[in-house]
Amino acid sequence: MITLKNTGNDVFIDGGVCAAKGFKASGVYCGIKDNPTKKYDICMVVSDVLCNAAAVYTLNKVKGAPITVTKKNLEKTGGKAKAIIANSKNANTCNADGEEKAYKMCCLTAEALGIKPEEVIVASTGVIGQILPIEPIEKAMNPLTEKLSYNGNEEAATAIMTTDTVKKEVAVEFKLGDKVCHLGGMAKGSGMIHPNMATTLNFITTDAAISSEMLQKALSEIVKVTYNCLSVDGDTSTNDMVCVMANALAGNNEITAENSDFEVFKKALFTVMMNMTRMLAKDGEGATKLLECNVSGADNLDTAITVAKSVIRSPLLKCAMFGSDANWGRILCAVGYADAEFDINKVDVSISSAAGKIDVCKNGAGIEFSEDIAKTVLTEDEITIDISIGNGNGSATAWGCDLTYDYVKINGDYRS
Amino acid sequence: MITLKNTGNDVFIDGGVCAAKGFKASGVYCGIKDNPTKKYDICMVVSDVLCNAAAVYTLNKVKGAPITVTKKNLEKTGGKAKAIIANSKNANTCNADGEEKAYKMCCLTAEALGIKPEEVIVASTGVIGQILPIEPIEKAMNPLTEKLSYNGNEEAATAIMTTDTVKKEVAVEFKLGDKVCHLGGMAKGSGMIHPNMATTLNFITTDAAISSEMLQKALSEIVKVTYNCLSVDGDTSTNDMVCVMANALAGNNEITAENSDFEVFKKALFTVMMNMTRMLAKDGEGATKLLECNVSGADNLDTAITVAKSVIRSPLLKCAMFGSDANWGRILCAVGYADAEFDINKVDVSISSAAGKIDVCKNGAGIEFSEDIAKTVLTEDEITIDISIGNGNGSATAWGCDLTYDYVKINGDYRS
Repeated sequence: MITLKNTGNDVFIDGGVCAAKGFKASGVYCGIKDNPTKKYDICMVVSDVLCNAAAVYTLNKVKGAPITVTKKNLEKTGGKAKAIIANSKNANTCNADGEEKAYKMCCLTAEALGIKPEEVIVASTGVIGQILPIEPIEKAMNPLTEKLSYNGNEEAATAIMTTDTVKKEVAVEFKLGDKVCHLGGMAKGSGMIHPNMATTLNFITTDAAISSEMLQKALSEIVKVTYNCLSVDGDTSTNDMVCVMANALAGNNEITAENSDFEVFKKALFTVMMNMTRMLAKDGEGATKLLECNVSGADNLDTAITVAKSVIRSPLLKCAMFGSDANWGRILCAVGYADAEFDINKVDVSISSAAGKIDVCKNGAGIEFSEDIAKTVLTEDEITIDISIGNGNGSATAWGCDLTYDYVKINGDYRS
Repeated sequence: MITLKNTGNDVFIDGGVCAAKGFKASGVYCGIKDNPTKKYDICMVVSDVLCNAAAVYTLNKVKGAPITVTKKNLEKTGGKAKAIIANSKNANTCNADGEEKAYKMCCLTAEALGIKPEEVIVASTGVIGQILPIEPIEKAMNPLTEKLSYNGNEEAATAIMTTDTVKKEVAVEFKLGDKVCHLGGMAKGSGMIHPNMATTLNFITTDAAISSEMLQKALSEIVKVTYNCLSVDGDTSTNDMVCVMANALAGNNEITAENSDFEVFKKALFTVMMNMTRMLAKDGEGATKLLECNVSGADNLDTAITVAKSVIRSPLLKCAMFGSDANWGRILCAVGYADAEFDINKVDVSISSAAGKIDVCKNGAGIEFSEDIAKTVLTEDEITIDISIGNGNGSATAWGCDLTYDYVKINGDYRS
């Protein structure tokens, strides 16, 4: 398991998507695909009251049908939602009847809960281009609603897993005025992960009161420096989505402008999303190591992001990290082909982990270091690469993982 | 071995970099790095007379010192060269004394051959960031010049190999007016290969008479649709270079304008570079299969190239091809995230090989196909993916390979 990263005085709590007041969840196995282990494959999340909601979606031209339907729903309601229905094992993407089926999922959920279909956020993840069977989903409605519970977060988090090896949940507690608020979420994603607006499926809930507009603003800002700085394999999925639902049950004054409460809220959102990003990276398909690349000294944020992402994406570096090989030339190579402006002769690189730190490159050229210490540093399972590219104030972090035999194994025969 | 692809009435001949009149070559083991097998690690190519020369280089900001020196040399001579000196095992990149050493290699070669240092094209390939020992290279000058031969092409082609498993040579014969001309070359490259101006080291020689300016024009045009449409792993090397030397010994009227002779010359250059691109793709690190992606119906050439390269680069597709899995959803996914304009609902996809052809996607949605036939098609070692994205006239091909356990193995511990 990953050690949660505390950015200050974060108070981590249990509960994931049910950590905030008034959110119930459930998960069941309905049989979308034959599965002898009967791993849960569909989940429901419901708020006791109507929520303000915001979402960001994949930028892939091929968009899963659920993305299209969720987008339409949120437009129709003006950013309101009450429930989430999400399945794994089938992405419902590139199917002629995809939108129809995705909307049908909303209707079934709405009927089961006595709400409107457009108040439902729908998501699917799994294989692309296979017809989604609707019968198992129809039959799942009763057990899903019956099992709904304020402690159902683990069931739900399990149900959205595909090749994930661990479920991913983070939640924090924070204060707005004198009101205690909660924000938590669950995520799935292991392969087909590369930054481009909302990687993977992520559902976040909060009991803070915040307008849909400010919620969207916070989400768009934070996703840029968290999920969008994550790369497992450079493949931008067709079904990526992050959505946040805020039900206001904490009773704070509603956030409707960029005030100090908004900053506090964004910090909580950042902590949850950043740690979920780290979880997603560490559980990348076949991964044995979490890689974190910090770029500083850039002229601006975008340059720092571009360079950090270029390094994290390099297959050669990822292989070297798997082999615990301090082949820093590959880091510099990936810095060099990043599409950004900076002076390559001012680049310094160091590599660190819980076992220590080594400087490997100064002013764009190699410097001597102990290969023994390097090996010790790189044998750890959480590796940090620090890169300074100049004297500017721009800095950013990107997250990824090593490239291993198991990545090839998992993806050489994923469908069967 | 690869089957050479004939684009019309190409006449393939032996001889590689020595196929053209008046070019000698040699290769020896000089010991740049300890190597018990004493595999050749340095080569020399010399023309009997001064040549017109042209080159294209990596766009990586980190440029190997030999690139900088070769560029300066060609500027100084106004596009003339007489010899090539190239070593493997050490890229002479990111070293404080890199340029000095690269220029020293030119001086040593010039002295040995009685020519000017600026008439030498210098290239290095191998590990980045390790000091290049100059003594072994000094000592190699005598054996290299002594062994120079009009049949030395194989020795030279072997000496530039790094993780390549086979040497790469192609040559053709063609006519300009009533003169028989020859054009041939050698290439190296297996990993750190991704299109961005002149991937890998490639040396091409011809006895055709053509001005430096027209040679550069032909090279820039052809590199765009050959080497720059090649991707093994998405990593753009720091030392990529393609250079062409033309010594005019065939006696044709010198090509100085875009006339019909220029078209004939470009066709010969295309045949050689396209087939070397295919060789590089098929010998990609750890590869078991050559992947060729043809995109047609695009609005223009650039759109076709962008889409074809996006597909060829996808790690998920590459793994699926390794596993002979017709997971076409990954093809469509990679088409979808290509940074280009087209209508995803007009995309058709088929997959073929020597064993047959299957249509897998029509108008952006999956169609039924026999998984048995698919498996038979995909078990071959040369796979073609045909993608139509509309009604335009733009078409392009990109080349790559599958992603395998051996890629991870090779790159998990390349330095040692």
